[in-house]
Amino acid sequence: MGIRGGIDLGGTKIQAVVVGDGGAVLGSSRMPTPTTGGPPDVAATMAAAIRDATKQTGADTGDLEGVGVGSPGAVSDDEGTVAAARNLPDWEEPYPLRDELASQLDTRVRLGNDVQVATDAEFELGAAQPYNSILGVFWGTGVGGGIVLDGKPWLGRSAAGEIGHVVVRMDGRKCPCGRRGCMEAYAGRLALERRARELEEKGEHTKLFEIMEERGRDRLTSGVWARALKAEDDVARKLIQQAVKALGAGVASCVNVLDVEAVVIGGGMGVRLGEPYVRKIREAMMPHLFVESQPPAVHVATLGDLGGAIGASLLVARPRSDK
Amino acid sequence: MGIRGGIDLGGTKIQAVVVGDGGAVLGSSRMPTPTTGGPPDVAATMAAAIRDATKQTGADTGDLEGVGVGSPGAVSDDEGTVAAARNLPDWEEPYPLRDELASQLDTRVRLGNDVQVATDAEFELGAAQPYNSILGVFWGTGVGGGIVLDGKPWLGRSAAGEIGHVVVRMDGRKCPCGRRGCMEAYAGRLALERRARELEEKGEHTKLFEIMEERGRDRLTSGVWARALKAEDDVARKLIQQAVKALGAGVASCVNVLDVEAVVIGGGMGVRLGEPYVRKIREAMMPHLFVESQPPAVHVATLGDLGGAIGASLLVARPRSDK
Repeated sequence: MGIRGGIDLGGTKIQAVVVGDGGAVLGSSRMPTPTTGGPPDVAATMAAAIRDATKQTGADTGDLEGVGVGSPGAVSDDEGTVAAARNLPDWEEPYPLRDELASQLDTRVRLGNDVQVATDAEFELGAAQPYNSILGVFWGTGVGGGIVLDGKPWLGRSAAGEIGHVVVRMDGRKCPCGRRGCMEAYAGRLALERRARELEEKGEHTKLFEIMEERGRDRLTSGVWARALKAEDDVARKLIQQAVKALGAGVASCVNVLDVEAVVIGGGMGVRLGEPYVRKIREAMMPHLFVESQPPAVHVATLGDLGGAIGASLLVARPRSDK
Repeated sequence: MGIRGGIDLGGTKIQAVVVGDGGAVLGSSRMPTPTTGGPPDVAATMAAAIRDATKQTGADTGDLEGVGVGSPGAVSDDEGTVAAARNLPDWEEPYPLRDELASQLDTRVRLGNDVQVATDAEFELGAAQPYNSILGVFWGTGVGGGIVLDGKPWLGRSAAGEIGHVVVRMDGRKCPCGRRGCMEAYAGRLALERRARELEEKGEHTKLFEIMEERGRDRLTSGVWARALKAEDDVARKLIQQAVKALGAGVASCVNVLDVEAVVIGGGMGVRLGEPYVRKIREAMMPHLFVESQPPAVHVATLGDLGGAIGASLLVARPRSDK
């Protein structure tokens, strides 16, 4: 077995890794996602990142067994395209990302869904190794989900795992997706930031935006939330408490449907807030689990920030059109 | 291929069928479920029902290729037991139903979950034949769910498909299961009856209980609800509207997670209220479907009342410990 590349294509950063046997990370590079231009500029930055990571191993990209990509949007590995990646610049129409990267890198390229490959990584190399069926919960800007059943990713008709949009309160809060009452409307970082601004405008005092400025950020990152919680900021505490409650109800709903052995919680917020908050989510699930005598195991994702890119590298070894 | 028996063990009735090739029903018998005694009395009535159905075909139960049973509670086909069947008399501890029936009937017996076998029946012989992955929604006393993914039942650790207990409103209405805000709390027939009584006690006028008495019933059956709706009873209309809304939100949540090709709606309420209400549920799902451009097909179950028993008969042909 040779070395393989993996790229996690995110709205703010592109993370590339080169991994060897057993998932060992041999090289790693992170670059900001271009905010202007379009798919070709993004593809060029992806190629630069994986070239950089490969160079650290003393090899060329042509020596890689292949490169896997975890992408947002509508991903078709069969067609080799990504479409409707709405958090990327001007990326609505299908773009032939696979062949474009393959020709720039002189190796074969496989495409997968970002959240699903991060789930696969936890399943094969991370917190979920002991289990056969899992739900990956990626608590970040939104709330994404990945599903593994009987050892295999479950993708449905390609859009399974949209757990952020299970309804936890009919007629409830407006979600960034435009719908009402979704779990993400209470738990996603984007929704939390909007809510924090509303509360501040209504006159509730919060340190969240001061901390954001002190840290030189332009949005409420997971780190900003973590600091505000540590500083016992009331608004931060209240909103994260509501987020935990919504995650508890929504994830328990998914477990009632899927009855998986384990839940792995990752994503920017999940990894940054870590075990104490994952424990709170587990507690918030309990009142809603139908088979309370047999709750699933609930773990923090262990591959952290690199999970998506490592998971993408796993695509290289997978047979085509594997479900 | 010979003839096979199927028994649907319900809280109020035991439905037995004998089916031939292609699922053709050759004999059928229905008996009330004993309300006193215990598992042995229930087993004896089950044996009587399948004997009666078999006699109609001119055969003896010993001639059957086998008998499948769809049962509520915690069903273990491997152990041959049913436990915790709470709507059956005094049935908490595991009872060796398989071997008991096998010895009374002189044929082999297989056990399955009642909702799952009804889903399998719709998948193999009913409304879901054109699809590979489906969600069965059984809207009756409670709301049960059965899942088929890539052509195979998905049972999880044995309790998958408890869709009645997905949370549609955090801190919402109390569910008969004791939890709060479950879909079943707004949609299950038992919950609807409790709510109708509360509203009547609060002084809202309803014909529901008059119709119940006229029809010689002791509870609000699906037929009573159907008649009250036809008579434009305000309480019935309001409660069924809330039920449809909750079903829309809860089933859409399940679709966002599973991304199945089709949803089949059966159960006492689903079959009795039929296509016009299934269409309303479909409409109520739409605002919550994450991929609105690709909604699943939504159908009424076509095997009606016999679906559970026919589905149970399918267990006979299935390899052991098939998942």
